[in-house]
Amino acid sequence: MAPEFDLIRRHFTWPVTMAGTLGVGDDCALFLPPAGRQVAVSTDLLVEGRHFFPDVDPRALGHKSLAVNLSDLAAMGAQPAGCVLGLALPDIDHDWLAAFAAGFRALSERANCPLLGGDTTRSLSGRTISVTIFGYVDPAQALRRDAARPGDDLWVSGRLGAAHAALQVMLEKWSVPADAPVPDWRQALEHPEPQLALGGRLAGLAHAAIDISDGLAQDLGHILVASACGARIDCTLLPAADGLQMLDEVQRLEALLGGGDVYQLCFTAAPGQRDAILQAAVAADTQVTRIGVIEPQTGLRLIDAQGRIVADGFAGFDHFRA
Amino acid sequence: MAPEFDLIRRHFTWPVTMAGTLGVGDDCALFLPPAGRQVAVSTDLLVEGRHFFPDVDPRALGHKSLAVNLSDLAAMGAQPAGCVLGLALPDIDHDWLAAFAAGFRALSERANCPLLGGDTTRSLSGRTISVTIFGYVDPAQALRRDAARPGDDLWVSGRLGAAHAALQVMLEKWSVPADAPVPDWRQALEHPEPQLALGGRLAGLAHAAIDISDGLAQDLGHILVASACGARIDCTLLPAADGLQMLDEVQRLEALLGGGDVYQLCFTAAPGQRDAILQAAVAADTQVTRIGVIEPQTGLRLIDAQGRIVADGFAGFDHFRA
Repeated sequence: MAPEFDLIRRHFTWPVTMAGTLGVGDDCALFLPPAGRQVAVSTDLLVEGRHFFPDVDPRALGHKSLAVNLSDLAAMGAQPAGCVLGLALPDIDHDWLAAFAAGFRALSERANCPLLGGDTTRSLSGRTISVTIFGYVDPAQALRRDAARPGDDLWVSGRLGAAHAALQVMLEKWSVPADAPVPDWRQALEHPEPQLALGGRLAGLAHAAIDISDGLAQDLGHILVASACGARIDCTLLPAADGLQMLDEVQRLEALLGGGDVYQLCFTAAPGQRDAILQAAVAADTQVTRIGVIEPQTGLRLIDAQGRIVADGFAGFDHFRA
Repeated sequence: MAPEFDLIRRHFTWPVTMAGTLGVGDDCALFLPPAGRQVAVSTDLLVEGRHFFPDVDPRALGHKSLAVNLSDLAAMGAQPAGCVLGLALPDIDHDWLAAFAAGFRALSERANCPLLGGDTTRSLSGRTISVTIFGYVDPAQALRRDAARPGDDLWVSGRLGAAHAALQVMLEKWSVPADAPVPDWRQALEHPEPQLALGGRLAGLAHAAIDISDGLAQDLGHILVASACGARIDCTLLPAADGLQMLDEVQRLEALLGGGDVYQLCFTAAPGQRDAILQAAVAADTQVTRIGVIEPQTGLRLIDAQGRIVADGFAGFDHFRA
């Protein structure tokens, strides 16, 4: 393999102009947090064949590798400070690297999240991508999973289910009618948009938050366990992606409640903040929907159009897991 | 695979008691840098079959995964703040995970570098380990690669060549006499000790520094290129690990100049700092050796016992690369 140094230099080095920041090229990168701010940090591994298809568009993969980490910052109410990238590659394909880097860089620049350093190495099989991201947050405003309170409204941003539906169709597990207009579900799967603007505005306003990477039911479950409370969701209120109505009811609920790779925010807030939250969503140019309520009784209760509980407790929707 | 959450919880969660720090279990970990300090960050990927043998002792591997990253902090003169861990594993072997975690934790606690978060996933082939580390450094004292100046002394810490010799013997490329006392080279390969205490004391005292992960000649080369100068090394001064005298001269020089995985520091400092540097080494309970000098003329010149230049420029020792 060519010297690792050269791969990072050639494909992943672009000007970093933040004050107090030293980018690619030394033993460590350096950045200078604003006084009194906490540093938020998150790390994700993406493995070929598990998190992405071998033939995925490398530009989209570069985007997504950074997007899923930015989504963790958004869920904490943090603003980006920078990131580092590790790449294990079976070979050196400069066209692939250039396209991956272009997708990564475009989002990095748009999100003001400079790439500060990296490590590349040869893998013996497929590609593995490791991104670690840093952000800043006011310690009093961080959106923690353990901060939900009984009586809170339960909200989600955006619309749900498209990424899951796209994956099921690509895996040929689900089919759509041949004469139906094909919705652009795949865009949601391959090009998720992290909700940084909304997360930043929710900091200090909402109580608990999480990003929906593993499915609404499972990720909300983490909030409920950490906060020692429960929730009730009105399934008729779940905001569905375009085209999900062509699925049958079981598939539709699976996509909405169990579908991962969404990277929207699920959050809780006091009912007195409803107007402020709707205004935050307008300012962030996104949609938020109130889907239920936090309750003292642990567990998750799903309510259908007739007001009946269709699933009670976490066990009831385990089969929805993607 | 069992939920990723549980693997991190079960094997990699131990109490974190630093003020302002939130560890494993939320979208992001949080830590609060001291006012005015820069955050230093470094990331490394370790790939099975490339950076470690599949049957390596998992406890030693846990130690080394963190040690190589701590060494990057040491080379920057930074003190540890915390780290995050990514693991891609072909299966869940709780005995292996427990031993890996024990090695990681022992060094984490000794170095005061808490594990703040992680991500685990199933790989389709061997194990891949990703560690990203953070530290704090006074912006005026960071040991940068571009800070060497002509006239500086050139120093290395510790002794060189053991890890490379161990690897060559394990790969059956080199043999040692059957009747020779076998030196404990393998300890150097599998259990490197990062030079944090020395690095911290060199901050503000030395000029440039780098850790020797890829071999002295190659890593020093990064300092020389970044600093736009050259160096002269007196090969008779290179501090050799025990037992290297049983090798022939070519093997010995290859181990000393080209051998990687050393994790000692190579650094430059003004001649007026010699006493201070020797005192820093005593305080850090380690050895430092002055091996040469930084010169205005670019390139690296290796001088033998007769004062002759045995290799001139970087091309001259490319074959030493491990």
